[in-house]
Amino acid sequence: MSENSLYTVVEGGSITTPKGFISGGLHCGLKKTERNDLGAILCEVPATAAAVFTTNVFQAAPLKVTRESLANGTLQAVIVNSGNANACTGDQGEADAYEMRAAAARYLGVNELDVAVASTGVIGELLKMDCVRSGIAGLPEKLDGGAAGAEEFSQAILTTDLVKKESCVKLTVGGAEVVIAGAAKGSGMIHPNMATMLGFMTTDAVIDAEDLLSLLRSATNSTFNMITVDGDTSTNDMLVTMASGLAGNEKLTRLHPDWEAFAAAFTHVCRSLAMAIARDGEGATKLIEVQVNGAVHDEGAAAIAKTVVGSSLVKSAIFGADANWGRIIAAVGRAGVPVSPEQVDIKLGDIEVLRSSRPVAFDEEKALHYLQKSDTVLITVTLSDGSGSATAWGCDLTYDYVRINAAYRT
Amino acid sequence: MSENSLYTVVEGGSITTPKGFISGGLHCGLKKTERNDLGAILCEVPATAAAVFTTNVFQAAPLKVTRESLANGTLQAVIVNSGNANACTGDQGEADAYEMRAAAARYLGVNELDVAVASTGVIGELLKMDCVRSGIAGLPEKLDGGAAGAEEFSQAILTTDLVKKESCVKLTVGGAEVVIAGAAKGSGMIHPNMATMLGFMTTDAVIDAEDLLSLLRSATNSTFNMITVDGDTSTNDMLVTMASGLAGNEKLTRLHPDWEAFAAAFTHVCRSLAMAIARDGEGATKLIEVQVNGAVHDEGAAAIAKTVVGSSLVKSAIFGADANWGRIIAAVGRAGVPVSPEQVDIKLGDIEVLRSSRPVAFDEEKALHYLQKSDTVLITVTLSDGSGSATAWGCDLTYDYVRINAAYRT
Repeated sequence: MSENSLYTVVEGGSITTPKGFISGGLHCGLKKTERNDLGAILCEVPATAAAVFTTNVFQAAPLKVTRESLANGTLQAVIVNSGNANACTGDQGEADAYEMRAAAARYLGVNELDVAVASTGVIGELLKMDCVRSGIAGLPEKLDGGAAGAEEFSQAILTTDLVKKESCVKLTVGGAEVVIAGAAKGSGMIHPNMATMLGFMTTDAVIDAEDLLSLLRSATNSTFNMITVDGDTSTNDMLVTMASGLAGNEKLTRLHPDWEAFAAAFTHVCRSLAMAIARDGEGATKLIEVQVNGAVHDEGAAAIAKTVVGSSLVKSAIFGADANWGRIIAAVGRAGVPVSPEQVDIKLGDIEVLRSSRPVAFDEEKALHYLQKSDTVLITVTLSDGSGSATAWGCDLTYDYVRINAAYRT
Repeated sequence: MSENSLYTVVEGGSITTPKGFISGGLHCGLKKTERNDLGAILCEVPATAAAVFTTNVFQAAPLKVTRESLANGTLQAVIVNSGNANACTGDQGEADAYEMRAAAARYLGVNELDVAVASTGVIGELLKMDCVRSGIAGLPEKLDGGAAGAEEFSQAILTTDLVKKESCVKLTVGGAEVVIAGAAKGSGMIHPNMATMLGFMTTDAVIDAEDLLSLLRSATNSTFNMITVDGDTSTNDMLVTMASGLAGNEKLTRLHPDWEAFAAAFTHVCRSLAMAIARDGEGATKLIEVQVNGAVHDEGAAAIAKTVVGSSLVKSAIFGADANWGRIIAAVGRAGVPVSPEQVDIKLGDIEVLRSSRPVAFDEEKALHYLQKSDTVLITVTLSDGSGSATAWGCDLTYDYVRINAAYRT
């Protein structure tokens, strides 16, 4: 979906497009290459804020600090580093995360309790705080409200990602133009219930923190929580959203006539970022989209969609352009959801390969062409057990996934 | 474990070592290469029998037929093919499985209801029944009670397996020597609750079908259900066991003084086969064994062990000889089991890498050497939440796994 009647995609838009936000990034020395590894977003006013976090039992130090900052429902800045996750780093790691927050507050001129801290990268190593300190000191002069600042920020949050991930939409709320934007990073350890991903969303909408959090949660469920790269869930996942309120719209609430449009636009940004993360999964050459219809309920459909898109055998087959629907149905059958085994239809793109659980004599050449040439492979699974439906996204499993992950630390 | 006081490993023993069994195999044309693809085990008397099956919603035709045959608690023969799973093949597939049973019964001279049918291979293609028919007709002359017949059978059940998997032990039951043996195949789509595996166990013990099934189930839970190669569970998994009763021992029951020894010996065969399947997982270069101790209960420990050994990131790191314990703890934390996050110890072999959830300054050279040189990598996770423990087995994730699965059908 690129556009609909409720909102408009802003081509080239970024996290600094909504009114009130500037951002930037730089290389402070946490990554071995010269790529950016420290970034910040700054709002000119304290922004209404909400966030969701990883469900992993082990939560990295920055998550504790950011939860504290969010207790008052406002944020004015985000400080984020890549190259080091500051996870499993004990008391020193916690002290380092607090120091990052304090330093960012001081240099950006905001209240310490209005700063979120995020980290991504290797687990279990202490942050090089001398790099972080000098980096934060140099950040203010790097921040700007144009595309350049957003670009530098987007680069600063990447690890093994190949491309930056941005999305921006606009809509009208009671006559006022409201913009919503986001930036995110993947790309391994990506699985439902957050992942190794960091996501940052900005909007200039006027909205209460409670409504923002509720919207963030429901949008996350159908987008970020429906992607998987490798089934692993990280210790650092965080999706932070800030609303500057500078659009001057009537306050958005669930009762506002434009709530539906705002929710759709907000979800669009989440979906775009989520799909971009899946497409840029470690080693991926293709995005895989699995749509499940006719399941006993939406939750069942979601479980099946995620099981199929997460199957190493399905992922390998797609990499090999092999229309191996046997692996798809095997994954459907182990998702832990009741399924009528004799009534399953499967399509690859628009090629029907299974009807009522029986093979269809499809054109193998056409299927090969579809799987080889499409940069998005659509798998549709239709059941006959109810009206539940869901969509999940993932990527193929390739030699490069193994290469990247066999030598990540070296 | 190769031996203990309760039983003795029989080096070179096979499924024909227990009294009463002959077996063999041949190439009938289901595999494209000249490797064996059809095999049988025949018992000289109707044997007490039990089996466990895949938990996948979609169950291949042979499973239905075999369940029927097992209804009377006896089997006298097993007919098995590789190269084609006869799954998702509809009414024709079911008719073909019944025909396999009937033909095997006729040529082997046994009751049709005493024949188990098993298939493994590609899903969704009809069996080439002309090959199967002529193969079954030729099988009787291939069967023998020596090592050669067992070897031919073991070869006949393999698909992408690189090596055959056999195990044999003996023990004394009330003064009589009892032998237990097994053969199995993996090697992709391997995951807890059975897998793409087929397993066949023979024993000459005197034992009722009910006790045999109960023992088979409990042994399976701690062995075959604790291995994973890629998290996928197949439509065809089956583990069949036959007891000829020709050892002449006093009947084994749970109250027999030698029950414990028999159960330990039986479990040894299951564990040996399960570990052999994990070690020969598609593309694997190493066996990974994950031991979890101190969990809230055994089920929790099992869930954690399986999550760690199934993590693509952990598997890739082991392939790369990378002591990346961060991925291990991340997997522990997403297993869905309560864990005290500050009290986790992790060892790689005897190298302590994490103590109380804090990194230990370990010798990276020593860890590299251990990971590179060991053909079995042991990961020990010690929690502080109770006395639950479990062990799971898997293998590393390699380029060859991707290569094998990106082009399986071609």
